[in-house]
Amino acid sequence: MTSDSSRRDFIRTGAALALGAALPPLSSAPPAFEAVRTGELAGSFRTGPMEKVRIGFVGVGGQGMTHVENLLEIPGAEITAVCDIVEAKVQAAQEKTVAKGFREPAGYSRGPRDFQRLCAEQDLDLVFTATPWEWHVPVMLAAMANGKHAATEVPAAMTVEDCWAIVESAEKHQKHCVMMENCCYDRFELMTLNLVRQGLLGELLHGEAGYLHDLRGVKFSAEGEGLWRRAWAVGHNGNLYPTHGLGPIANCMDINRGDRFERIVSFSSPSRGLQLWQADQLEADDPRRRERYVLGDVNVSLIQTARGRTIYLAHNTNNPRPYSRLQLLQGTRGLVSGWPYRLHLEGRSPAHQWEDAGAYYEEFDHPLWRSKRIQDMDRGHGGMDFLEDFRLIECLTRGEPTDMDVYDGAALSSMVELSIRSVAQKGKPQEVPDFTRGRWRSRKPWPIVEV
Amino acid sequence: MTSDSSRRDFIRTGAALALGAALPPLSSAPPAFEAVRTGELAGSFRTGPMEKVRIGFVGVGGQGMTHVENLLEIPGAEITAVCDIVEAKVQAAQEKTVAKGFREPAGYSRGPRDFQRLCAEQDLDLVFTATPWEWHVPVMLAAMANGKHAATEVPAAMTVEDCWAIVESAEKHQKHCVMMENCCYDRFELMTLNLVRQGLLGELLHGEAGYLHDLRGVKFSAEGEGLWRRAWAVGHNGNLYPTHGLGPIANCMDINRGDRFERIVSFSSPSRGLQLWQADQLEADDPRRRERYVLGDVNVSLIQTARGRTIYLAHNTNNPRPYSRLQLLQGTRGLVSGWPYRLHLEGRSPAHQWEDAGAYYEEFDHPLWRSKRIQDMDRGHGGMDFLEDFRLIECLTRGEPTDMDVYDGAALSSMVELSIRSVAQKGKPQEVPDFTRGRWRSRKPWPIVEV
Repeated sequence: MTSDSSRRDFIRTGAALALGAALPPLSSAPPAFEAVRTGELAGSFRTGPMEKVRIGFVGVGGQGMTHVENLLEIPGAEITAVCDIVEAKVQAAQEKTVAKGFREPAGYSRGPRDFQRLCAEQDLDLVFTATPWEWHVPVMLAAMANGKHAATEVPAAMTVEDCWAIVESAEKHQKHCVMMENCCYDRFELMTLNLVRQGLLGELLHGEAGYLHDLRGVKFSAEGEGLWRRAWAVGHNGNLYPTHGLGPIANCMDINRGDRFERIVSFSSPSRGLQLWQADQLEADDPRRRERYVLGDVNVSLIQTARGRTIYLAHNTNNPRPYSRLQLLQGTRGLVSGWPYRLHLEGRSPAHQWEDAGAYYEEFDHPLWRSKRIQDMDRGHGGMDFLEDFRLIECLTRGEPTDMDVYDGAALSSMVELSIRSVAQKGKPQEVPDFTRGRWRSRKPWPIVEV
Repeated sequence: MTSDSSRRDFIRTGAALALGAALPPLSSAPPAFEAVRTGELAGSFRTGPMEKVRIGFVGVGGQGMTHVENLLEIPGAEITAVCDIVEAKVQAAQEKTVAKGFREPAGYSRGPRDFQRLCAEQDLDLVFTATPWEWHVPVMLAAMANGKHAATEVPAAMTVEDCWAIVESAEKHQKHCVMMENCCYDRFELMTLNLVRQGLLGELLHGEAGYLHDLRGVKFSAEGEGLWRRAWAVGHNGNLYPTHGLGPIANCMDINRGDRFERIVSFSSPSRGLQLWQADQLEADDPRRRERYVLGDVNVSLIQTARGRTIYLAHNTNNPRPYSRLQLLQGTRGLVSGWPYRLHLEGRSPAHQWEDAGAYYEEFDHPLWRSKRIQDMDRGHGGMDFLEDFRLIECLTRGEPTDMDVYDGAALSSMVELSIRSVAQKGKPQEVPDFTRGRWRSRKPWPIVEV
C-alpha cells in the first residue's frame, strides 16, 4: 500500500505541479536507426501456435481488471502473475482468478518497478499492461527484453522516441507488441470495415476520428485515473488520446498496409475546462487548486496520408459535452458517420438522405459480431473489450499475426507528440515517421476475420 | 441571347478546359496599403437614413431571382434596373416588378460587362450582384466607383487581392459593401447566436463549419450553375465555398469585432467525384468528358483565431452525401451542433446527453424569427433568404451599420485563396490578412437585433 499512498499524497500536496515536468520529455527528433538491422519482420509478424498463453498482467485497476475478467473467460488464456502498486488490487485479481478454477497467480506489489521482477523471473508468454500511460513502454520493453510478448492499453507510447523504442525492441527480440485498441472492435466500427471491404463506400477519401469525452470528473477523482491522468494536462498541449477514434479509421484506410500517415497539422484551443472545475468544484484549501494546466480543451488536427486521403482528428476531455468518437468515413460511393450512427450509400439510400445504421446490421454485421461461438461465452462487460481480448488470445494460440502490430501501435500513438509539436509551432506540418520503413507498400490489409 | 449562347457553346465545346486558367489568378501576397488613407471607417460604417433604396440588380438567374422576389415584398426597396447576359431573364425580372405595381426597371443585356453601363448611367442607391463568382468583384467595384453601395452573393471574392480591392474601394468611396450570407439568418444559427449572447455556452473555444452538399448534378447541369460552377474545379484545389458554414460561426465568435482569423492550414483529398460522374453519366461523345479537374473532393482546413479559438472548416461538393453545414460550437459551459440540430447545456441538459434543439426554440428563438412584422409579410421562399434581404434594406433605410460589412466579407472570402495556398504548400500555415488593420480589437460585436 505504501507506494500508492505516497503517490496519492504526492499529488494531494500539490506536487502534481511538478508531475508534468517529470513525464517523459519530448524527443527533439526520431532516433537514427541502423541501415541494416537484425530481425526485421517481413510482412506481418507471426510466431508458432501455442496451446496456452500464460499472462503476466501489470496494472489491475479499472480497465486492467476488465481485461483480467475477460481473459478468465477466454479459452487458452491463463493469468499466472499479477502486478500492481496497490497490493489489494493484486489480491483481488488473484481471488478472481482462483474463483474461476485457476491456480493462484504470483503477486507483485513492491513498488512502481516491480514489473521488472515479474518480467525477469516469471515463465510467461505475454505481459499485458494497463498501467498509467507513462508506464506502458517501460513495461513492454522489460517484457520483450525478457523474451515475452507484450500487449498494452492505449496509447502504446506518448513520444515518438518511445514509438521507435517499441518497434526496435519487437524487431530485435522477435516478439509481438500489440496495442489493444478496443474501439476497433465496436459493432459500428466493424460493420464499417465490412462495408469498406465489400466496396460499398467506393474509394475512401476522408475520415473523421475523435475522442470527445467529458472526463473532468474522472480527472479530479480521488482514485483511479484521477491519480495520474490530470497530470498530463500540466505539461502537454496536444492530442493526448488519439487512438480510440483513429484506430478504426486507420484499419479501414489500410494504414501501414497500402497507405500510411504522412503528415499532421494541429491547433489547440485555450485551456479553460480544468481551471473552471478547480474554481467550481474544489474546496478553497484543496491543493489541486494550485495546479496549472496548459492542455488546450479542444485539440484539432488534420492528417494527410501518402495516398492523399485526409483525416480530421479531434480531442476534448475538458468540457461539458456528450461522448463521441466521430467515426466518419467519406468514400466516392457513400459515407458512414457515428454519433448518431448513420450512413448514406449511393444507389441504395434515398438521394441526399441519411439512413439509420441500425437497419444495416442484419445484412452487414461483421462476422466477429455474428459469431455464435463468442455469443455463447460469458462476456463479462461484453462487446468490444471482450472481442479485442478474444482476438489477441486467438491469434497467439493459432500462431497468426495479431490484428494490430507494433507498427500500428507506433503510428497511431505517434500522433500524441506530433500534435504537440505542431501546436507548439503554430500549426507547422510534422512529418510522420514511417515505422514500417517502406514496407507499408507491400503489407496486406487486415482482412475480414471469422472465428 | 448572343452572350449566353456563346458562353454555353464555349463550355459545350470542351473549351471549359481552358476556363479554369482564365479565372482570376492567385495573388502572391496581399497588396501594400498606404499607412495613412483617406476615409478610413471608424468602427462600423453607416450612412444617413434613406427613404427608398433604389436597386440595380445584376444577375437574375436562380438565386438572383429569389432576391428580386424578396425585395419586391420589402418596404423601402425598389428595383429600378436589372442586368443579365440572358435577355429573357431581364424581361422576367421586369415583369415580376411591374406585376407588383412598380415602374418597369431599366433593362441591361448587352453582354457580360453591361453592368458597367448600368452603374454609370443609372441613379441608384445599391447595386446587388448574384452573378457567377468571378464577376462579384468587378460588379461591386464598378458600383462603388460610381457612387453606389454594393451587395453580393457569396463568396464576395475568390482571391486575397480582390478581398483587399473591395475593402479599399469601400473605404475610398465611403460605401457599404455587403456580402449577403443567407445562412447567418437561418433559424438554428440565429438561435445559436442568441444562446451565445446570453452566455449559455460560456466562453467559446471551438467551432465547426462546412459546406457539404452533393452538387454533382448541379455542376453538370446544362443550365444555371452548371454553366460556370464546374469550371472552378479545373484550376483550383481548396475550399471554394467557405462562407455558408463559416459566416454564422464568425458572428458568434465576434470575428473582426473582438477576435479575428489569424492563420489557416488546409489539406485536400484526391479528386474523384466529378471524374466518376463523367464516366457514369455522360455520353461517350460528350465534350465535357475531356475536362480535367484538380479540385480535391474533400477539402479540410483548421483556422486559429487571435484569441486562440479553433475552427474546423470542411468543403465537399463532389461526393454522394446528405447536406450539412456542421455548425458546431463548443463553449466552456456547453455546445450546439447542427445536422442533426442538437445541444448540450451544462446544468440544464441531462449529464453527457444531447437534447433536440427543437425543444429550445420556444425559449431561445432569435427575435428576427419571432418578429410578428416579418411573419405578416409575404415572404416568398421565406426563411433565411428573406430575412437577410429584409435586414439589408432595413439597415440602409434606417442609416444603421449593416449586419456584415466589407471586412467580414473579405475575411470570410479570403479563406478561398488561403486554403488553396496551404494545400499547394502541403499544409503550411497561411497568415490571414487583417482587413480591419487592427480595428478588430475595438469594433463591437453584432448585437441581437429586433425589427
